[in-house]
Amino acid sequence: MSDTRFAERVSVEQVEEGNNLAPKFDENGLIAAVTTDAKTGDVLMLGYMNAEALAKTIETGEAHYWSRSRKVLWHKGATSGLVQKVVDLRIDDDQDAVWLKVEVAGSGASCHVGYMSCFYRSIPTGEKPTPDLELEYQESSKTFDPTDVYGDAPNPTQL
Amino acid sequence: MSDTRFAERVSVEQVEEGNNLAPKFDENGLIAAVTTDAKTGDVLMLGYMNAEALAKTIETGEAHYWSRSRKVLWHKGATSGLVQKVVDLRIDDDQDAVWLKVEVAGSGASCHVGYMSCFYRSIPTGEKPTPDLELEYQESSKTFDPTDVYGDAPNPTQL
Repeated sequence: MSDTRFAERVSVEQVEEGNNLAPKFDENGLIAAVTTDAKTGDVLMLGYMNAEALAKTIETGEAHYWSRSRKVLWHKGATSGLVQKVVDLRIDDDQDAVWLKVEVAGSGASCHVGYMSCFYRSIPTGEKPTPDLELEYQESSKTFDPTDVYGDAPNPTQL
Repeated sequence: MSDTRFAERVSVEQVEEGNNLAPKFDENGLIAAVTTDAKTGDVLMLGYMNAEALAKTIETGEAHYWSRSRKVLWHKGATSGLVQKVVDLRIDDDQDAVWLKVEVAGSGASCHVGYMSCFYRSIPTGEKPTPDLELEYQESSKTFDPTDVYGDAPNPTQL
């Protein structure tokens, strides 16, 4: 797909070893985006960006994603105030994923459930998984009450 | 999709607030996997797992992915020796992504191009992107020569 904001992908060498930004969006027009806390190094969330969200993130230095559940451009923090300021924006070897190191405004939380990170539970390793396996909580309490912040907005989690 | 190794997804509350591992695989049967270096906190790579790769990672404590380019279960490091030992395995709120904190064997590299991290280039922010934007290298040299390690194996990067 040609996009006048980005370079065209012409060779593997250009994509992997060059200085061009030539992102590869998938069949849904999306690229994966990993967001980490610049201070703690914790992974806060894994989101997705379309070309517009990536361009807005580059232009503004604030994280924008594509909301797959709401199907809209999503300026993270627009509702909650928990804006993510981009300290460093990286692209990977084949340019189909980005990594954002961010400073989060306010309480520093990034998860709609109320935790700091969306990755608040660990999966125990060392045994074959069964439906009885129990996840272990790594965050003991929520930083906010989602109903206070989001009110009646539909939960983005889909079954 | 029902999988006898994992719990079934029965409610948003169970998925977000429960102790069940009830992962959601996408239309290609995959879940995104973010891998960070347990020591530095750097994001090393973004990969994908199918149900088998996730189960193998849980059972063995070593990272397994689904190679989308080769379409095979991929025990990371089987060719290069750069095995990723899982220190902590996390799942996100809606259970469609995992985060692996790993210790990498050998040189510690995780990128097939030869760098420590696949995310070796930064995208400058603050201006609207154009095709003339120049990426900035954050790693100055490769840790290995890919042709020594992978020989004639096809490059996984696709245009």
